[in-house]
Amino acid sequence: MSNCYTCGVLAGRHSAPGGTIYEDACWEVGHISDPVLLPGYLIIKLRRHCEHLADLTPEEAATLGPVVQRTCLALARILNPAKIYVCSFGEGVQHIHFHVIPSMAGMPAGSYAVFLWLWLRRSLHRIGIKKWVHDPAVAENIAAQLRHELC
Amino acid sequence: MSNCYTCGVLAGRHSAPGGTIYEDACWEVGHISDPVLLPGYLIIKLRRHCEHLADLTPEEAATLGPVVQRTCLALARILNPAKIYVCSFGEGVQHIHFHVIPSMAGMPAGSYAVFLWLWLRRSLHRIGIKKWVHDPAVAENIAAQLRHELC
Repeated sequence: MSNCYTCGVLAGRHSAPGGTIYEDACWEVGHISDPVLLPGYLIIKLRRHCEHLADLTPEEAATLGPVVQRTCLALARILNPAKIYVCSFGEGVQHIHFHVIPSMAGMPAGSYAVFLWLWLRRSLHRIGIKKWVHDPAVAENIAAQLRHELC
Repeated sequence: MSNCYTCGVLAGRHSAPGGTIYEDACWEVGHISDPVLLPGYLIIKLRRHCEHLADLTPEEAATLGPVVQRTCLALARILNPAKIYVCSFGEGVQHIHFHVIPSMAGMPAGSYAVFLWLWLRRSLHRIGIKKWVHDPAVAENIAAQLRHELC
């Protein structure tokens, strides 16, 4: 869909640091296309434009778990996070996607605190306070390692 | 594991309103075992005790997407929510599980606001303010309908 942000990422109209990390017939994995607030914060995107998990095809449903498991295993091997959150909201961007968020040392404890921490940093970035943005090269390096793990 | 809350639910030591809605070789679906703050707020639980999505077996991974898709489809047919959030955090209770949260009319707009809304109501309930707790019969009725859809 021409006005869908995720379709734009999949078509290469918007870029993510490190580019595509993994893709198969149904799913594509890459960094979130934000400024790099958390290296290793990935998005698993459905390649087809579809807005509700209820509407996944049998092939898309059968391949969802394996891509989640493999992505989490690759992140665990490379970043060794305490936990990895995997969440689908689909409100700001309606196209089905899963946020894959590694909970790293130095981050607040607990998923609610992590979401607030990310939201605050993103909001501050939007008003020009860019203190917590990482060099895209950090995400590109992680993406290269993840790509190697997932190949 | 004897000290795992989710293993306790699976073994019948803790109950959820409406009981088990669906189960297969790997996964079990039921209401969250809280007071009924949101009828239709379900938990998809891995039947085996395992703490990290990276450690799912191939069978568990292959069946995750289908149980998510079918659960969302059943919820959509019965409750017609605007959106369904599907999230795995695994911090308070380490055993792999997914929160399946229907975003209904009258709830705040946006996933962050919904999580805050649920957290506030749960916290108020814990200090004795039970104004927003639904009769378990409401959840039991929804569970019966979901069970019929998922059979």
